[in-house]
Amino acid sequence: MNKVVKSIKEAITLCGLKDGMRISFHHHLRNGDHVINMVMEEIANMGYKDLTVNASSVFDIHAPLVNHIKNNVVTGLEVNYMGAAVGREISSGIMQKPVDFRSHGGRPSDIENGNTPIDIAFIAAPSSDNMGNCSGKYGKSACGSLGYAFVDAMNAKKVVVITDNLMEYPLFDFSISETYVDYVVCVDKIGDPTGIVSGTTKITRDPVGLMMASYATKVIQSSGLLKDGFSFQTGAGGASLAVAKYLKDIMLKENIKGSFGMGGITSYLVDMLEAGCFEALMDVQCFDLRAVQSIRDNPRHKEVTASHYASPTAKSAIVDNLDVVILGATQIDTDFNVNVHTDSNGFIMGGSGGHSDTAAGAKLTMIVAPLTRARLSIVVDKVLCVSTPGNTVDVLVTQRGIAVNPKRIDLKENLLASGLPVVDIHELKRIAEEITGVPKEVKLGSKTVANVIYRDGTVIDTIKNTL
Amino acid sequence: MNKVVKSIKEAITLCGLKDGMRISFHHHLRNGDHVINMVMEEIANMGYKDLTVNASSVFDIHAPLVNHIKNNVVTGLEVNYMGAAVGREISSGIMQKPVDFRSHGGRPSDIENGNTPIDIAFIAAPSSDNMGNCSGKYGKSACGSLGYAFVDAMNAKKVVVITDNLMEYPLFDFSISETYVDYVVCVDKIGDPTGIVSGTTKITRDPVGLMMASYATKVIQSSGLLKDGFSFQTGAGGASLAVAKYLKDIMLKENIKGSFGMGGITSYLVDMLEAGCFEALMDVQCFDLRAVQSIRDNPRHKEVTASHYASPTAKSAIVDNLDVVILGATQIDTDFNVNVHTDSNGFIMGGSGGHSDTAAGAKLTMIVAPLTRARLSIVVDKVLCVSTPGNTVDVLVTQRGIAVNPKRIDLKENLLASGLPVVDIHELKRIAEEITGVPKEVKLGSKTVANVIYRDGTVIDTIKNTL
Repeated sequence: MNKVVKSIKEAITLCGLKDGMRISFHHHLRNGDHVINMVMEEIANMGYKDLTVNASSVFDIHAPLVNHIKNNVVTGLEVNYMGAAVGREISSGIMQKPVDFRSHGGRPSDIENGNTPIDIAFIAAPSSDNMGNCSGKYGKSACGSLGYAFVDAMNAKKVVVITDNLMEYPLFDFSISETYVDYVVCVDKIGDPTGIVSGTTKITRDPVGLMMASYATKVIQSSGLLKDGFSFQTGAGGASLAVAKYLKDIMLKENIKGSFGMGGITSYLVDMLEAGCFEALMDVQCFDLRAVQSIRDNPRHKEVTASHYASPTAKSAIVDNLDVVILGATQIDTDFNVNVHTDSNGFIMGGSGGHSDTAAGAKLTMIVAPLTRARLSIVVDKVLCVSTPGNTVDVLVTQRGIAVNPKRIDLKENLLASGLPVVDIHELKRIAEEITGVPKEVKLGSKTVANVIYRDGTVIDTIKNTL
Repeated sequence: MNKVVKSIKEAITLCGLKDGMRISFHHHLRNGDHVINMVMEEIANMGYKDLTVNASSVFDIHAPLVNHIKNNVVTGLEVNYMGAAVGREISSGIMQKPVDFRSHGGRPSDIENGNTPIDIAFIAAPSSDNMGNCSGKYGKSACGSLGYAFVDAMNAKKVVVITDNLMEYPLFDFSISETYVDYVVCVDKIGDPTGIVSGTTKITRDPVGLMMASYATKVIQSSGLLKDGFSFQTGAGGASLAVAKYLKDIMLKENIKGSFGMGGITSYLVDMLEAGCFEALMDVQCFDLRAVQSIRDNPRHKEVTASHYASPTAKSAIVDNLDVVILGATQIDTDFNVNVHTDSNGFIMGGSGGHSDTAAGAKLTMIVAPLTRARLSIVVDKVLCVSTPGNTVDVLVTQRGIAVNPKRIDLKENLLASGLPVVDIHELKRIAEEITGVPKEVKLGSKTVANVIYRDGTVIDTIKNTL
């Protein structure tokens, strides 16, 4: 028995693709991924139309999608994140149907619950055996965790593993097991390693970033959460990484034994694990080479599925037990609603990812962002898009002061007691506008180009076309 | 958030148990399991009736089930294996409805496909955190793999984890994740370690057993399968273990690098792994302490689910790639049909387990059994119960000769060329009956006390009541 077929084309044919079907992809190969483009080019050449692409994220490398959209090969798009290259085109209104944005927790929930049934899942796998036991930990295109891809494999009617490293059966350290896989295709190259993971993620050297990191660290200290059992998620931004570094120093000095680090994992979280700051890392996605190496070699660095990470309809998810998350924003309004979907001009250039999931789960949700960016205030009266509702956001840290959500009176008192520069969020907006001037109102069109589906399934906002 | 409730009773109430529901259990605690008895006693005390118990296996320790059956608390029973204590009672006809026997692969298949939907699964877990991330690898009741329990957790409407070792969140080396778990109950003791795993499994010293093992090993050598990539499953019987030992010596001497060992894992397979005879062990169940230690500490010793092990409706299972399996029999008939459900008098005292699954998958399915047992021939004209159909059995090894299924002309030629004592299976029967005399016909009643459901879902045989 052997599931290896000769080509992507053969796999597509054997899976019985039909016009109108929903096909899925995961994004662990990030901006190095060749698989979406290879599969979609084949599908376009074969003459299929009217497909819905459900991808956990699309990056700038996936710009060829734009042509498939214009040619009606793709008429539906469902993602958790979208880079600017495709985003600007979507914003300009090239699709008839709005894009559906979900979160990293909402996507697996909707697949599992049958709201977005997948006909064919294409799994980019850095290693696989001939029966489809596959892993992201080995091979020239290693990406580490395959966390987002489990739900696709476990629920799609047909599953195709696409690999560039065929290993002997059984690939015993499999992530996704053969029980879910119909076909395996071996290609020369599933991606470009330099785009899949960065060599190393780097701390900011920018003094503004370092100041924000310093404030953020003090907020965590003052919150009362930095004690034994502490759990933490941060992203790969330079200031967030600096927080991880500062926290590590404090935890070691004060002998604080945290429980887990989570999320997209970087070398800084690996450092914290190895230094004993955490019992474990729960990893849905690796951001750099050191994280890939660690998830392969360190049994305390554990791959978790997207459902385990953040699904709102799982019986519980790790986000439900998260103490502190550090998140970014392109805009935050005076009700603490956060936009991570569009830039200040309304162009799509992002998405929730795990933003709204972790914000909902964490005991302390902190937005860390510079007060102004590209000569615009990040604090606004009303965000152009509500990605994460303000009632799940506790505090905004900028280089010019820290604004606490009024519902967190306790936190505000703690920060004041610690001597931190707590200011009202309206005051932050005023300070920003002193520098940037009052921004002109952004005029958008009347066509809905995207729905933002919150993790509970409701449409929390819509995104209109740019003019 | 915390899923720990005070008692099994509270969990049952919270799960909304109702008369007529189907509840499930797994059998990794084997003859040391206290969980089925604790839960069923509580359920009986609470006054529930007419439940169906779906358990991967029941052992002699579960004899209290007999009273629950007699009291109509349990009116349906679905198992893959049943020890004699309960089996004799079932054979005597105490249930109105027949027991449904499945195989280790058929059970998860039927649960996944909705044929036997589980209302509440009770997972005996040697360790768990307060959210239900649980494992069999740690704790005083450690049993190693929880392979059979995944399907229960992943598909039951409600899932209760019962543990005697509550660990800090997150139990990062979880087998079953919190995403599936509703409640966690911590009790003093989920089982008796001496019944859960044997201290060590022991090779036979009986000369008859050693002769059978020697023949079996030579059959494997002669089959042409003992080469690089070799894969192997054997049970925990004394002669089977001797085969493992002999194979290890040959593989080391001839520098043969096998791919995987599978099945219920014993110290002898661990020895083979550690000696480099296999790349990996794929473990659905641990039989002894050394196996438990190995699955905890050796990354090449991998836990697999029952579906991955053997499901006939998974997109593939490991049995599909198995070279050689050694299996037992209480009876085998001249068409090579094998009985492992009843003894020679028709009393239920076993079940398929993985017998028919591995027989269907393996390239070489070998039955190893003494020619006579308790003064009865094991070779008969017609087995009292067809557990495994003869067309999936290749060869019978006894101390008095080796019978090859006529459909395996190639194998017969190879064994003859190796000088092995190949004899017709009718001749083996004749030799046995020379010793034992012609057995009296076993008279059974007309009531069906059990259906044997083959892995493809068909009823391959029924078991009648004893008189």
